[in-house]
Amino acid sequence: MDKLKLLEERIREDGLVLSGDVLKVNQFLNHQIDPDLMYALGQEFVRLYKEESITKILTVESSGIAPAIMTGLIMHVPVVFAKKQKSATLDGGLYTAKVYSYTKKVENTISVDEKFLNANDNVLIIDDFLANGQAVNGLLDICELAKAQVIGVGIAIEKSFQTGAELIKKRGVRLESLARISSFEGEKVHFAGDAEND
Amino acid sequence: MDKLKLLEERIREDGLVLSGDVLKVNQFLNHQIDPDLMYALGQEFVRLYKEESITKILTVESSGIAPAIMTGLIMHVPVVFAKKQKSATLDGGLYTAKVYSYTKKVENTISVDEKFLNANDNVLIIDDFLANGQAVNGLLDICELAKAQVIGVGIAIEKSFQTGAELIKKRGVRLESLARISSFEGEKVHFAGDAEND
Repeated sequence: MDKLKLLEERIREDGLVLSGDVLKVNQFLNHQIDPDLMYALGQEFVRLYKEESITKILTVESSGIAPAIMTGLIMHVPVVFAKKQKSATLDGGLYTAKVYSYTKKVENTISVDEKFLNANDNVLIIDDFLANGQAVNGLLDICELAKAQVIGVGIAIEKSFQTGAELIKKRGVRLESLARISSFEGEKVHFAGDAEND
Repeated sequence: MDKLKLLEERIREDGLVLSGDVLKVNQFLNHQIDPDLMYALGQEFVRLYKEESITKILTVESSGIAPAIMTGLIMHVPVVFAKKQKSATLDGGLYTAKVYSYTKKVENTISVDEKFLNANDNVLIIDDFLANGQAVNGLLDICELAKAQVIGVGIAIEKSFQTGAELIKKRGVRLESLARISSFEGEKVHFAGDAEND
């Protein structure tokens, strides 16, 4: 019973299920953001990883930033967000990884400045969504390049019927997802552990 | 003396002045983020606008999100970030504005879903940087389209020698910038109000 019921309730209330198993949570996470909910997610990630000495939070722009920064605020550790586009003022050494977005049907190169991740870092990766796991996989690749130790992954919303969760576990990385969606049924969202799914 | 000395000190310590009057603050704001500093910025924006009834924070992805969400957290109001790219799951009515980035030399269209901004909103616009003011100008255009009332603008770092501050004031909008850079001298940053500039 350590799941964040608050988030599940919010998904039921304000999430929109679109065709192709797309869940739109623009109302509180991806476009409009509820800062108090994000803080609650941060508290939950901190609770789940409280035994670990985390030195850095890693996420990817843009929607990962809100839950990541709340986690960083409570832990008092820096948050690094991987960039999707090469910045005119990003120069020097970069760790890069390729990330394919199934939703947007484009391949992005994400990058992190070498200055902000190294072999002394114990990293907690935070992201808003886990579906096919491509973004998290890219962040794990970047941590490998930096020789940083990955303590685990924290996800707000996992679509457990897609391949991302398995991909992360196969890489031997601890995964904690606060809301785990087992299926969509029309406009209804079923969560892993719901009585009706048991 | 209501300026945030903490931010000025951090700019002096960790900011990098590049050619073309570019200030790189990747170490604590634009790529790696210091959550505690962002929270302090949020507290300062809340203090500056405490007389106002703000219903929504508006910013633009990605670097505006961190200071905006801390402000929203303290005020307990939602944060909306304008998107730079059309999302596959953004559909329906959008408010859009054109924004030219002098740093990246590209024109972006930024957009906000009509659902998240309307005539009942009292908006505080927050962004990390103010230079030529194009991003804030676009956000002001979007508020006009939404018929939302703009209470003011809160900026972390203003380059006061560029045209943005004047542009906002000409539109009749209150502007509060926490660090105001009056000039660069080699690698040194001068702030408005520094003894050496008086």
